[in-house]
Amino acid sequence: MQQNSKPVHSKIVHQAAVHKLLERGVEIADIAEIVYEMQAPYSPNLELKTCIESVEAVLEKREIQHAILVGIELDVLAEKKLLSEPLQSIIETDEGLFGCDETLALGSVFGYGSIAVTTFGHLDKQKIGVVQKLDTKIGSQVHTFLDDIVCSIAASASSRLAHRIRDLEEAAEESQQNQDQAG
Amino acid sequence: MQQNSKPVHSKIVHQAAVHKLLERGVEIADIAEIVYEMQAPYSPNLELKTCIESVEAVLEKREIQHAILVGIELDVLAEKKLLSEPLQSIIETDEGLFGCDETLALGSVFGYGSIAVTTFGHLDKQKIGVVQKLDTKIGSQVHTFLDDIVCSIAASASSRLAHRIRDLEEAAEESQQNQDQAG
Amino acid sequence: MQQNSKPVHSKIVHQAAVHKLLERGVEIADIAEIVYEMQAPYSPNLELKTCIESVEAVLEKREIQHAILVGIELDVLAEKKLLSEPLQSIIETDEGLFGCDETLALGSVFGYGSIAVTTFGHLDKQKIGVVQKLDTKIGSQVHTFLDDIVCSIAASASSRLAHRIRDLEEAAEESQQNQDQAG
Amino acid sequence: MQQNSKPVHSKIVHQAAVHKLLERGVEIADIAEIVYEMQAPYSPNLELKTCIESVEAVLEKREIQHAILVGIELDVLAEKKLLSEPLQSIIETDEGLFGCDETLALGSVFGYGSIAVTTFGHLDKQKIGVVQKLDTKIGSQVHTFLDDIVCSIAASASSRLAHRIRDLEEAAEESQQNQDQAG
Repeated sequence: MQQNSKPVHSKIVHQAAVHKLLERGVEIADIAEIVYEMQAPYSPNLELKTCIESVEAVLEKREIQHAILVGIELDVLAEKKLLSEPLQSIIETDEGLFGCDETLALGSVFGYGSIAVTTFGHLDKQKIGVVQKLDTKIGSQVHTFLDDIVCSIAASASSRLAHRIRDLEEAAEESQQNQDQAG
Repeated sequence: MQQNSKPVHSKIVHQAAVHKLLERGVEIADIAEIVYEMQAPYSPNLELKTCIESVEAVLEKREIQHAILVGIELDVLAEKKLLSEPLQSIIETDEGLFGCDETLALGSVFGYGSIAVTTFGHLDKQKIGVVQKLDTKIGSQVHTFLDDIVCSIAASASSRLAHRIRDLEEAAEESQQNQDQAG
Repeated sequence: MQQNSKPVHSKIVHQAAVHKLLERGVEIADIAEIVYEMQAPYSPNLELKTCIESVEAVLEKREIQHAILVGIELDVLAEKKLLSEPLQSIIETDEGLFGCDETLALGSVFGYGSIAVTTFGHLDKQKIGVVQKLDTKIGSQVHTFLDDIVCSIAASASSRLAHRIRDLEEAAEESQQNQDQAG
Repeated sequence: MQQNSKPVHSKIVHQAAVHKLLERGVEIADIAEIVYEMQAPYSPNLELKTCIESVEAVLEKREIQHAILVGIELDVLAEKKLLSEPLQSIIETDEGLFGCDETLALGSVFGYGSIAVTTFGHLDKQKIGVVQKLDTKIGSQVHTFLDDIVCSIAASASSRLAHRIRDLEEAAEESQQNQDQAG
């Protein structure tokens, strides 16, 4: 049984995470739109394409892949009424004082700095774009964990983008200075 | 020098923290008003008095007292241009990618659950009440740390209140059930 | 269906959490022994009874109750092979780079200050007492989440105790001073 | 005053952070040795050179650079008795229940996942290598913040290395499979 002790390959984990998001109705472009809305005020020339790339980069991280798998698993089990009580009722009704969904999502947000954490909090309250759609429960759907996870990915991708844009600005500035000195 | 090795009494730390807030223009009632604005939609009969009590309870905690002392100290030193470079410039200009202010504030928010963390993020972006006033820098004032600390106290007091209100509801319910059974 | 929308009573959640711990082989006294081992070096007169009280106080908190329910649910489902792949394999083998177990446990540790967080990290590496027993998997048992949760409860109870002991010392000191002044 | 509004260039912040560490007696190789001690049991062929590279990569991050600047500034000000009371006494004596040092350090540890957090807690208790040296205060030196910051860098670099090693293993495996298929 040597194969069992070998960890699951990260490519398989990555594919499973993206696939689960799609199955639950969340496309990368949906998340990228939230990122665009968050960052556009600070970067007038921002394109959606850049936001999509940032979301994809965030989805490469093990921490967020694992959170996606765990969170969606619990949502789906709650939908199928397969959890034991009282957890079944707590997750099914998205109890106001239940915080494990935010905690799990926060775990991967931290990876992008304290600014990502405040963005996460903001998104979690404002329910922008696809998060609003997930929060408006239809029938027996359960998205208790998924809406926080989407906020987490969007907050991480926004923070990542803000850091990258600064890096690019600094690089452009240096290149300009070098030209000035050469000229 | 035995006295030096004895820790500072918590009463002194508590008084110093509240005093520093006042010196920097933040009254407990200002923070309580943010708490009121956050919690009133969920509790129709909420009174400002209850919010003041919750803010006072949060200010009893060592974690937040220490954060207040450290944060305000750094703001004041930056105001007096007494920090070394490049930290002086970073704090003085409240640099967008500087995150130590949020990190320090988050440390005490965590004490009130993951829901307090999302409320903190929301307040940090929305700049409600006194936070708005602090954020609108007049002259050479520096409030880089203070605005996050005020958000932290307000978020903690809001979360504390939400938990208390649930506890009271449950107690009232039980008392009603006992009366029904007795009747 | 009004009853469904009413949140589960906190007493039921508390009982369920303690019951689940017992079912999985963890008694309050086991956790209290870890607390004793952590705090005894700093408090020569510490009694196990005080540690038990501290563990019980920590178990009163919603944040930790919810983490216990979620964590044990995932362990049990993994044991029964009821999770979807690749999550089933990741949890079953307690994958080294899987961090959702630590993240979930950390969520409730934060409630007891940053010192609780460092104690958690220490316990998580040292595997003291019952944590060692849980980590030594027998047969098909899965304790991927439970060992972190036990570390979390022990770290929180240790930190809570450290703060209480300081409070008592200060109170004793004041009482002595009052007597000295009166005498 | 346009120059004032332009953020400090990240190269200057990076240089300042590394320079401050050196000034306070901490070399990159000192931190790399802690990383080596943490990771060597899991990677028999690990070289110190690889650990140095990992520490250097961690020091490229704004979050840790800022934490270094803030933490060392407070240590130095406390050493010079330039902080206001009671903060001066609290930091000077490295008060047991003061947690802002851990909080500040944790802010950048989070960036490397929850496993980095547990490693941080472990290092913070065990006081390995240079951390031990810093903790053994000589004369009027204050290292209240610095020892936690060193633990933070070491924990982050260890976690980063663990993830990299897994990536390399997976890449090697794939390359082997490709050869097997080609052969």
